[in-house]
Amino acid sequence: MTRYKLTVEYDGTPYVGWQSQANGRSVQGAIEEAFLRLVTDRVVVKGAGRTDTGVHATGQVAHVDFPRDWPAMKLMDALNAHLRPEPVAIVDTEIVGEDFDARFSAKARHYLYRIVDRRAPLAIDLDRAWHVRTRLDVAAMAEAAKRLLGTHDFTTFRAARCQAKSPMKTLDRLDVVRDGDAVLVRASARSFLHNQVRSMVGSLKQVGIGLWSADDLAAALAEADRTACGPVAPAAGLTLVKVDY
Amino acid sequence: MTRYKLTVEYDGTPYVGWQSQANGRSVQGAIEEAFLRLVTDRVVVKGAGRTDTGVHATGQVAHVDFPRDWPAMKLMDALNAHLRPEPVAIVDTEIVGEDFDARFSAKARHYLYRIVDRRAPLAIDLDRAWHVRTRLDVAAMAEAAKRLLGTHDFTTFRAARCQAKSPMKTLDRLDVVRDGDAVLVRASARSFLHNQVRSMVGSLKQVGIGLWSADDLAAALAEADRTACGPVAPAAGLTLVKVDY
Repeated sequence: MTRYKLTVEYDGTPYVGWQSQANGRSVQGAIEEAFLRLVTDRVVVKGAGRTDTGVHATGQVAHVDFPRDWPAMKLMDALNAHLRPEPVAIVDTEIVGEDFDARFSAKARHYLYRIVDRRAPLAIDLDRAWHVRTRLDVAAMAEAAKRLLGTHDFTTFRAARCQAKSPMKTLDRLDVVRDGDAVLVRASARSFLHNQVRSMVGSLKQVGIGLWSADDLAAALAEADRTACGPVAPAAGLTLVKVDY
Repeated sequence: MTRYKLTVEYDGTPYVGWQSQANGRSVQGAIEEAFLRLVTDRVVVKGAGRTDTGVHATGQVAHVDFPRDWPAMKLMDALNAHLRPEPVAIVDTEIVGEDFDARFSAKARHYLYRIVDRRAPLAIDLDRAWHVRTRLDVAAMAEAAKRLLGTHDFTTFRAARCQAKSPMKTLDRLDVVRDGDAVLVRASARSFLHNQVRSMVGSLKQVGIGLWSADDLAAALAEADRTACGPVAPAAGLTLVKVDY
């Protein structure tokens, strides 16, 4: 057995999410099927994070124990050939030690959330961004975002179905910048609660449309109560960009 | 009758191109159908440029004579409502004089061509970029591109089916820059021949992979012969970004 680290890019639109589920196609399942075309043994692909339905990735990371000792690039090319026509690509492959675990060895996860705030609906960015018809106050969002940095009980921004043992997380980065008609939110942490980024972005949007002040956002965090959260931002705007080890 | 200028964004993937044709759905046709749901009179939408099958736009411009005198934003919102679920959006609308013609009043057209040069196939950028497996020499491409600037007979970079009266065109901009795993080519001119941008990009790629020198590119231009052109770059990488008036 050789352990490989796979860096994976995908368009999450047609999938039920990263993780295999009974109710539809998953990214993990698509990659495991590609492995089954290479070797008869069933191979399990373990990801760094379980992205939801419709969430994208440019730098998801997974590890896998493969019963052949192939050069990393040979495995990458073979997997990509067998992944066609799925919108999933293995963009990097590396042989790693048995102590490497895509999920537990991760030191930081980096997400990008894209909002397009314009009157017209989305055409090119359909399924790739959140369309908000009101022009957002990015300066106010950026200022308010600072109130979420650091170590907190993030229960307010946690999905009911979240399986993490503790709601305590340390948020290292939450930047909000404008890029033309788009507002980009970049979030980094060692790990996130389920739906945490989308919950924080949904609440930041309340600040951007002038409904909440920075103090309101800080108060929502302090309440540590799911009902204090703003409407959760849709999956389509979210991309898992990078995982550090 | 009131003349409106429409700025249009679209994902060109599902269309036969901008212009209505017998063999499938066009962007023009989709917008004309949206008009038919607003008024019973048939309205003709005239575009600044006829983008090909699979070519995208963020700033295509069209004009239309509409038998109502509506505020520009009312028309825009109504068209967008009736365009759903097509990947076409009217991103700006303006009332203009009868002398405004989207095609003939245009002073400059700006295109962006995106190449992704990496070993792995495309997932997120599928249908949005040209995948080239070889890392391109962007400095060599940028230097060679300068040889095409100015007024020339562009017959080498002209599709056989081009309907322009003359092959003489003035190329004002042809920049090549790297942006991570992408190579961006920006081309500007008052007008282009049919397939000119894709033909130039296909030939610049020959420079990028080291097959052609800048002198070879200049010689291909000087030959004024279609057979001297490199393989034409695919439609998916091309976007009509802006039209100046």
